Amino acid sequence: MLELPFPYLVFLGDTQEPLFAKTAFGLRDWAPERCIGEWSCGHTAVTTGLPRVSPREARDRGARSLVIGVANYGGIIQENWIPTLLEALEAGLDVIGGMHARLQDIEPLKTAAARLGRRLIDVRVPPANIPVASGRKRTGKRLLTVGTDCALGKKYSALAITRAFKDRGVEADFRATGQTGILICGRGIPMDAVVSDFEAGAAEMLTPDSPPQHWDVIEGQGSLFHPSYAAVSLGLLHGSQPDVIVVCHQAGRTRILGKSDYLLPSLEDTIDLNLRLGRRTNPGIRCAGVSLNTSQLDDAAARDLLAMQSQRLGMPVADPIRGGAEFEQLVNACLA
Amino acid sequence: MLELPFPYLVFLGDTQEPLFAKTAFGLRDWAPERCIGEWSCGHTAVTTGLPRVSPREARDRGARSLVIGVANYGGIIQENWIPTLLEALEAGLDVIGGMHARLQDIEPLKTAAARLGRRLIDVRVPPANIPVASGRKRTGKRLLTVGTDCALGKKYSALAITRAFKDRGVEADFRATGQTGILICGRGIPMDAVVSDFEAGAAEMLTPDSPPQHWDVIEGQGSLFHPSYAAVSLGLLHGSQPDVIVVCHQAGRTRILGKSDYLLPSLEDTIDLNLRLGRRTNPGIRCAGVSLNTSQLDDAAARDLLAMQSQRLGMPVADPIRGGAEFEQLVNACLA
Repeated sequence: MLELPFPYLVFLGDTQEPLFAKTAFGLRDWAPERCIGEWSCGHTAVTTGLPRVSPREARDRGARSLVIGVANYGGIIQENWIPTLLEALEAGLDVIGGMHARLQDIEPLKTAAARLGRRLIDVRVPPANIPVASGRKRTGKRLLTVGTDCALGKKYSALAITRAFKDRGVEADFRATGQTGILICGRGIPMDAVVSDFEAGAAEMLTPDSPPQHWDVIEGQGSLFHPSYAAVSLGLLHGSQPDVIVVCHQAGRTRILGKSDYLLPSLEDTIDLNLRLGRRTNPGIRCAGVSLNTSQLDDAAARDLLAMQSQRLGMPVADPIRGGAEFEQLVNACLA
Repeated sequence: MLELPFPYLVFLGDTQEPLFAKTAFGLRDWAPERCIGEWSCGHTAVTTGLPRVSPREARDRGARSLVIGVANYGGIIQENWIPTLLEALEAGLDVIGGMHARLQDIEPLKTAAARLGRRLIDVRVPPANIPVASGRKRTGKRLLTVGTDCALGKKYSALAITRAFKDRGVEADFRATGQTGILICGRGIPMDAVVSDFEAGAAEMLTPDSPPQHWDVIEGQGSLFHPSYAAVSLGLLHGSQPDVIVVCHQAGRTRILGKSDYLLPSLEDTIDLNLRLGRRTNPGIRCAGVSLNTSQLDDAAARDLLAMQSQRLGMPVADPIRGGAEFEQLVNACLA
């Protein structure tokens, strides 16, 4: 499995739109101990608030790699970033990218890396030796975040639950399945880039046998209800063999992102279908509760909604970003 | 999408075990009009009954390619086959393989093909330009064969239904999703080799818009209940958007092939889960009936079983290989 060299220097390119720097903000929020600082082309780029450090300086302070922390439309590596990437290689840093474009395909980078003995690491490239899933039950406990749709909090929920488990002294590992998650935790498998015959096998590889009391908290991908990406979600569900699922949803979202013809499923339907399919590889699967992204509501409205949904569904409903008693209850239910 | 050059010369290597020559027999049974003849290394190899023709002679009779019609353990191209494959290239034939090993990776073949301007075609390699699924409803009608498990008749059922549709004057195309199917119909997409993010998109690409009365009859893959391959099955189901499914099962099989810990689902459960998931991209989906592989029963026992299951499920249950009135009823129900 991919293991990334850290600490990182986080690179922002010349990005002025914070939304395109989601990866950099994710690193700041969830892996500050892995980040020496940030760097960008010029001073008009967005900032994460991490200290501004040049590649040379970062290397001197112990950095082992520069991470491209931005994702523009099309996932391209812009030409005006190349001098900085070369500078990083010269300074002794590996370069890590998570764009669609591959670092290896950029001739000047490839030549410089070969000359300097540095690595160009594409986190979107899955390992070569993924087996077909065995279906064998593994030791240890597993939790998977699943969703009504893409991009509504499955990664953040899994990170927050991992942190809460650790705060309680429960042995736990966040298991990353997408590029930002992999950068945050330094390893993982980009599940959406795995050949479909090996999708469940990749999930088995990601969460191997572990001690009986240990939890793998697995970042979900896509949704069983997504007309484009459900194959990824089902392979991940089968291979993860979760004991517990937490269903993630965004308050107010009613249609699949970018597919307005497709209504979002109800929470009940999402819970039921995930349990039905998950039971195939783990008959003991259960739903601990719902993680509701209420970022578009004020605090009072959010708390009301969480209480109302919890009442209606008969299980904990919390927003991990808001935390509070609701989230404590959700974590209790996960560990129950 | 892959388009294969035919007519073929079917190559049997030095295979003495008919089970390993399944692809060659499939070609003889379902695409005899595409086959000029067969060839093998020496006279002890298995025969399909097609006329024995050398590569040179086959070329003279109009063949455009040699197809490797055998699949041994490990999917390797044996060294003692190479002289014959080179002879075929020299004679002016392209070479088509469906093994795990890639023809392009065999240096003497690669060199000879380049020198002679011939193609080495690996049918396990999906096209490069597969889009993410749009989820948009397409014109024309679609039928998908689905199963309780792998390797129990999904391809043969789809081929038999396509033939029956055509016999009735219904415009229909068999849509191949696996290597043997692709060789039989000369084109298709190897769905198990597609990256999971594009699985549903590949199914959309395979069955594009067509005239309103036209049927695409799509070869199913795996099973939603298979702990290794369900991702393939769900992507294919979502992307195919079938109007009709036919559920395939083998009489007497009670456990997943090679996974004896996993019981086979009931036919009712298989129908219900496929309809529930298929409804997501085609709310009008229905199950026309069951295709039951009764190859291990005698005719009387088979007919009794078909009648009993049809009674129990309230829908046509037929063995397409046996044909008969039951199969007529199944075909009627597909077109109803």
